[in-house]
Amino acid sequence: MSKSNPAPVPLKNVRINDPFWSRYDGLIREAVIPYQWDALNDNIPGAAPSHAVHNFKIAAGLEQGEFEGLVFQDSDLAKWIEAVGYSLITHPDPDLEQTADGLIDIIEKAQRPDGYLNTYFILKEPSKRWTNLAECHELYCAGHMIEAAVAYYQAAGKRKLLDVTCRFADHIDSVFGPEEDKLKGYPGHQEIELALVKLYKTTGNEKYLKLAKYFIDERGRQPNYFDVELEKRGRAQHWDAFRDFGRSYNQAHVPVREQTEAVGHSVRAAYMYSGMADIAAETGDETLKAACKRLWDNIADKRMYITGGIGSTEHGEAFTFDYDLPNGTVYAETCASIGLIFFARRMLALEADAKYADVMERALYNTAISGISLDGRRFFYVNPLEALPEASEKDPGKRHVKVTRQKWFACACCPPNVARLLASLGEYIYTADDDTVFVNLYIGGEARIDLGAGSVSLVQETGYPWDETVIIKIIADKPLEFTLAMRAPGWCDRMDVSVNGEPAGAVTLNGYARVGRTWSGGDCVEIKLDMPARRVRANPAVREDIGKVALQRGPIVYCLEEADNGKNLHEIVLPASAGLEVETDSRIPGGASVIKADALRVDSAAWGGGLYRADAALPLVPFKAVFVPYFAWANREPGEMAVWIREVLLT
Amino acid sequence: MSKSNPAPVPLKNVRINDPFWSRYDGLIREAVIPYQWDALNDNIPGAAPSHAVHNFKIAAGLEQGEFEGLVFQDSDLAKWIEAVGYSLITHPDPDLEQTADGLIDIIEKAQRPDGYLNTYFILKEPSKRWTNLAECHELYCAGHMIEAAVAYYQAAGKRKLLDVTCRFADHIDSVFGPEEDKLKGYPGHQEIELALVKLYKTTGNEKYLKLAKYFIDERGRQPNYFDVELEKRGRAQHWDAFRDFGRSYNQAHVPVREQTEAVGHSVRAAYMYSGMADIAAETGDETLKAACKRLWDNIADKRMYITGGIGSTEHGEAFTFDYDLPNGTVYAETCASIGLIFFARRMLALEADAKYADVMERALYNTAISGISLDGRRFFYVNPLEALPEASEKDPGKRHVKVTRQKWFACACCPPNVARLLASLGEYIYTADDDTVFVNLYIGGEARIDLGAGSVSLVQETGYPWDETVIIKIIADKPLEFTLAMRAPGWCDRMDVSVNGEPAGAVTLNGYARVGRTWSGGDCVEIKLDMPARRVRANPAVREDIGKVALQRGPIVYCLEEADNGKNLHEIVLPASAGLEVETDSRIPGGASVIKADALRVDSAAWGGGLYRADAALPLVPFKAVFVPYFAWANREPGEMAVWIREVLLT
Repeated sequence: MSKSNPAPVPLKNVRINDPFWSRYDGLIREAVIPYQWDALNDNIPGAAPSHAVHNFKIAAGLEQGEFEGLVFQDSDLAKWIEAVGYSLITHPDPDLEQTADGLIDIIEKAQRPDGYLNTYFILKEPSKRWTNLAECHELYCAGHMIEAAVAYYQAAGKRKLLDVTCRFADHIDSVFGPEEDKLKGYPGHQEIELALVKLYKTTGNEKYLKLAKYFIDERGRQPNYFDVELEKRGRAQHWDAFRDFGRSYNQAHVPVREQTEAVGHSVRAAYMYSGMADIAAETGDETLKAACKRLWDNIADKRMYITGGIGSTEHGEAFTFDYDLPNGTVYAETCASIGLIFFARRMLALEADAKYADVMERALYNTAISGISLDGRRFFYVNPLEALPEASEKDPGKRHVKVTRQKWFACACCPPNVARLLASLGEYIYTADDDTVFVNLYIGGEARIDLGAGSVSLVQETGYPWDETVIIKIIADKPLEFTLAMRAPGWCDRMDVSVNGEPAGAVTLNGYARVGRTWSGGDCVEIKLDMPARRVRANPAVREDIGKVALQRGPIVYCLEEADNGKNLHEIVLPASAGLEVETDSRIPGGASVIKADALRVDSAAWGGGLYRADAALPLVPFKAVFVPYFAWANREPGEMAVWIREVLLT
Repeated sequence: MSKSNPAPVPLKNVRINDPFWSRYDGLIREAVIPYQWDALNDNIPGAAPSHAVHNFKIAAGLEQGEFEGLVFQDSDLAKWIEAVGYSLITHPDPDLEQTADGLIDIIEKAQRPDGYLNTYFILKEPSKRWTNLAECHELYCAGHMIEAAVAYYQAAGKRKLLDVTCRFADHIDSVFGPEEDKLKGYPGHQEIELALVKLYKTTGNEKYLKLAKYFIDERGRQPNYFDVELEKRGRAQHWDAFRDFGRSYNQAHVPVREQTEAVGHSVRAAYMYSGMADIAAETGDETLKAACKRLWDNIADKRMYITGGIGSTEHGEAFTFDYDLPNGTVYAETCASIGLIFFARRMLALEADAKYADVMERALYNTAISGISLDGRRFFYVNPLEALPEASEKDPGKRHVKVTRQKWFACACCPPNVARLLASLGEYIYTADDDTVFVNLYIGGEARIDLGAGSVSLVQETGYPWDETVIIKIIADKPLEFTLAMRAPGWCDRMDVSVNGEPAGAVTLNGYARVGRTWSGGDCVEIKLDMPARRVRANPAVREDIGKVALQRGPIVYCLEEADNGKNLHEIVLPASAGLEVETDSRIPGGASVIKADALRVDSAAWGGGLYRADAALPLVPFKAVFVPYFAWANREPGEMAVWIREVLLT
């Protein structure tokens, strides 16, 4: 890694103290982590049982029974430990640590003498280890356990799980690789690549970086390994549906450096791109970096919803094609946007361009937190841009779109993923190189940042995303020369920066307003981000959204809900000239802004009857439309929702 | 059946001589029937093989091999014979008759001594007859063979196939019925009900009517027969997909008289409703008639595309819910609209209301003939209202939507269905009771109609659907008093009727302009149907079409095609004030009219770049849009198509 590349400021150096995010931080600790522990232990009445802890206890010889759940059930438990690790870093909690220690003891007992660790294969198909990488998630689960181990080690300083996963990674390294006696395989669900880079950074053992690179380099070569193993096992499939997906489903259709478009399962894609960016950063591999940039641009410029959601179809939970962003049949899985946030953070470490942080912010403030209810107890897997309860019930093509968040899922990847993201949010705020601090997100709190010439602490104070002012205070023992590079958000047309009450003369480069000077303790930066409610339009190539607008204020995308606007949201139209009033709504925690607009509504009562008529267009009547933040939808009674609204041109 | 109910004028009494339909008539005889014979014999290079004739030859002991194809493969062959029968009625052809006779000889040889006839079960699962009615189409195939036999008997006067199917129907009657030793089953795919009514009418044997009524009466009762047989065979399934469908898929969720909404597989539904209407007409069963009317109204008022297509989703090829009519993920199977035409004709025999003929005409002139290419050699299964080649290729949710008609299908229900419909089109034109002739369709030709007081012949001369004038000449040996009831099309705002050059003083009742008088040979009726190109709007409850218009002229629905308008049809908008010019286009056979409009187009080149922007709406630039008849789409190079177009309100 080039010395001059910006690196994330680690979680342990950041404390969040923010009206918007501290609430989530509390929710994660007080509601989500305990709730998910109950879920993993099958103690949530009325929710789909997880079996995850029970499976480990059986594998450890502590309980009787059979493996239950999906082949990747172990990963939910790993993500929970990872979230616990992050939480303990910022909020020590001896009881929680004891619970996690107990679980880690069980995991250690479940590990086989050769280092292998996967309860599905240990309990159910011990002779079939590593025979179905395409479908069976062994390397995926290994990756999550490694991430958990690294987080827990950083939190509690305890090596037990780290040692378990090092033994497992060593075992994996003995099975896969270029040597003649090893398998030439790679994961069917990418994840271990980025995890191995973390393990390398934590242990300093280059073997793990090399193995991660091997998985990336080998992927998509001919003959395709997934075809090879399929033939080897007599074409037996774990999941019937996989037959239809093809090799682009798991991004193994061509070598990764030749990939130009984001295709296939969107979570797999985002995790793989994150791993590629990590390896590019660690090795300086320019072809890999170029592939990351191409794939990023394809997503951000052509395949992403305005909410930062990705994955246009439920079939394979996948990308489809450029500008194909249907609002009602959308997938936009919570995990996929979390993966996009991972990818964004890694791109910021490859090059300091605020465009990555813009997307990170978009996905974070909209889809990622749409994935969790305001009370932290229910979750969305799919995050639609348009919802109609009757369609979710009666149109099989929209059955995956739910209008109420669920308590838990049989396939429960999303809830613990939200938990681990939000518990580690601190490490997404800043990056820094030797002489520049990049402020990527405006989130209140304090951070200690190490620069070439010394350390500095920054204190952010802000009511963002509702308020346009951000204060950054410098805390330093001695004057320090560095550049403070503050993201000029893509959504913001006017950003004013002052230092100690004087215009700062900031120079904007690659999306950051930069102020370079010798900073002293007590210096105070004030940022004003002009934040009117605005109509946003999609590229006209997006067929679904042509003639429509979405409302956005700051990073927050808005939507119409039935609870405010009645049924038949499609009747509402917004004249291009209608004013938009921003009001604070106390019903949404954190003093959220809602937007009220002098809209119009099709007077459907004037319809003459029947299904088709050659009459004149129906009249439009005045209607006061209320828009709420997208992330807050579906926290009241179930009903319709729409992000995009038709615009009328009244000239 | 009440004497005063109108009955269809039989095919043998009608000769079509019409610029629009004679071309189709010729295509059916000269292209479609020979082509489909080749297809059934697996002689179409590059097309999916049918195996249908080969299966019968194996079952007849004439060839070696194994059954191939789908479980309902026999029905394609039956529908071909039925089409041949209709064709022979109007156009005797000794060579074709000889071919059909040869095939019927094979069918007779394939029949088992007990009357059973189904090549799948004869060859593949002889011990499993009648064990899986829900999925295995035995009664469906039987129904089609009966329809074929009746048509062929009426055409050629030959009883062989009729006798075969009577033996088969007798066998079926020995297996199913209320008696204790009989199965309480009914078809998984309805069809035999209407076929048995035809067999009853042809043979006079009431047993067949009774059996048809039994199938209708028993359907949907508790315990559900499909559940009973599923348990009996140890829950084995023929098709995995059936697990998900539920009992509404084949309209067996509740007894038919309790059904209020059109649900499930749309072809099954339409065939069943047709059979219900037949039985209601034959038995005077008022509860059954009421159910037919309810189900009709639900389709026509809430669940039908403007093209007369039905079936809103590919999942189960099914209806979804009221006003859910998505244009791009639509199913609108050709067979379903043909079924709707069958249902309409039967409703016209239950009550003389032109609303049934309106839908019949809509489905006929749009979806049914969209199912076949202008050269008669390629077929659509799905008839979308919006198509984009890239979406058909890359969005799995639209993979069922094709942008080019196919040569044949592995599941080839649609091509022979179009053939049998068009070959029997003559019997859809008129209905008559004792003293009234109802003209339901305006199609040129001659018909002999028997009334209470004697016979009359009518000669229609018209350039319909392109021309607004219809001439009806009376040919009669002696003056005859009757009412001529001419459909006042629902799409027509002004209809003028004159008799011998004088205003006729027609009285419109239930959608028919009626002229009652003593008619003499040589009387000449002239009908003028005001036929401007018009904007049609959908009920505002149809979310997909709000803010959009479709163009229609007469019964013809229009669409935009890429061949005329370039790519990105979604950019085109039609001001409410734009004039619509009708022009004749010689490229479409039969002197079709196209519509040209002074439309506007989003100037997408003015887009500032990126995926989302808070800029002003893009400018609209003038664009001359060309609309072609929907049925004629996809007869040039593959490309985009759209029926519904956004309307701008420029006030």
